[in-house]
Amino acid sequence: MNREEALRLVKEQITEHRYIHTLGVVDTALQLAKRFGGDTQKAELAAIFHDYAKFRPKEEMKEIIISQNMREDLLVYNPELWHAPVGAFLVEKEAGITDREVLDAINYHTSGRVNMTLLEKIIFVADYIEPGRSFPGVEEVRKTAESDLDGALIQSLRNTISFLLLRNQAVYPDTFHTYNHLILNAKEKI
Amino acid sequence: MNREEALRLVKEQITEHRYIHTLGVVDTALQLAKRFGGDTQKAELAAIFHDYAKFRPKEEMKEIIISQNMREDLLVYNPELWHAPVGAFLVEKEAGITDREVLDAINYHTSGRVNMTLLEKIIFVADYIEPGRSFPGVEEVRKTAESDLDGALIQSLRNTISFLLLRNQAVYPDTFHTYNHLILNAKEKI
Repeated sequence: MNREEALRLVKEQITEHRYIHTLGVVDTALQLAKRFGGDTQKAELAAIFHDYAKFRPKEEMKEIIISQNMREDLLVYNPELWHAPVGAFLVEKEAGITDREVLDAINYHTSGRVNMTLLEKIIFVADYIEPGRSFPGVEEVRKTAESDLDGALIQSLRNTISFLLLRNQAVYPDTFHTYNHLILNAKEKI
Repeated sequence: MNREEALRLVKEQITEHRYIHTLGVVDTALQLAKRFGGDTQKAELAAIFHDYAKFRPKEEMKEIIISQNMREDLLVYNPELWHAPVGAFLVEKEAGITDREVLDAINYHTSGRVNMTLLEKIIFVADYIEPGRSFPGVEEVRKTAESDLDGALIQSLRNTISFLLLRNQAVYPDTFHTYNHLILNAKEKI
């Protein structure tokens, strides 16, 4: 699918504000893919579709999680997580995207997972640092992403977990395991 | 075993500084046990022995973790965690304490675990807030512990996890699961 067709499909699904965010993620993902040797075509496609399901009703997302036998613990944690795996499902079903790597990058762009692929890391970090983002700590992650994708990913995960802790919220286990896995791997390399 | 005999055994094992900390944990654990309906005798015994293995050589602790088939992931994470389960083992073997509740309170006083008993919570929180502690956030936990033991436990766990995140360190999974479990349970109650 070409860029224009993909953007047209996404634009129908999300708000103007979220569409502008999406364009930021697309630009950033392309930069990261070029910088770290990722597949630019897949990065562009995954970035365009990453928030496809962001505005689906909670009930619809819940039904899809159950009917598609997705990880059940999703339902226990923050519904903000749901649009990622549900998005991967709907992008395949409704937009006809079948590339597993692209669908996985959509699936794991909010939670992360242990052993993320290069494409998954690119979309996760691009979503965190695209130019429209302005939360505390984002400048540090942008700087790290100039040379160190895993470092930027660790910082994004750390900020996300700290944010949830401060707000007395539970942390999705995959997010926490992704952080631990990267930290322990980085220590082994030293 | 009476208080004097227990204190004598522990004093041989730890530094003067750590012994003063231990006396603080004993006082605090007794207060918490009275406040929240815990067993004061068990709280006193567990508090006295909680840091029994704190100054054992790392190699000895590692051998015990392996030979006693303790959770192997302990070896992957911070050695600061080891003295708790190793302590529970040595307190039984060397001091002849056989009360399982007391040994479990020693075992889980650093990592926490899902479904902690009242005694385990008392020792965990007492260790965190005893009068000798002065790290950031401890006053808030002391205040919470005046009326809400689970709340104080959540705050202690949150501070511990945040501390590790800021220092780019891995977080022991049990610690994180304990936090999540308490948060999700508290939300159910609301």
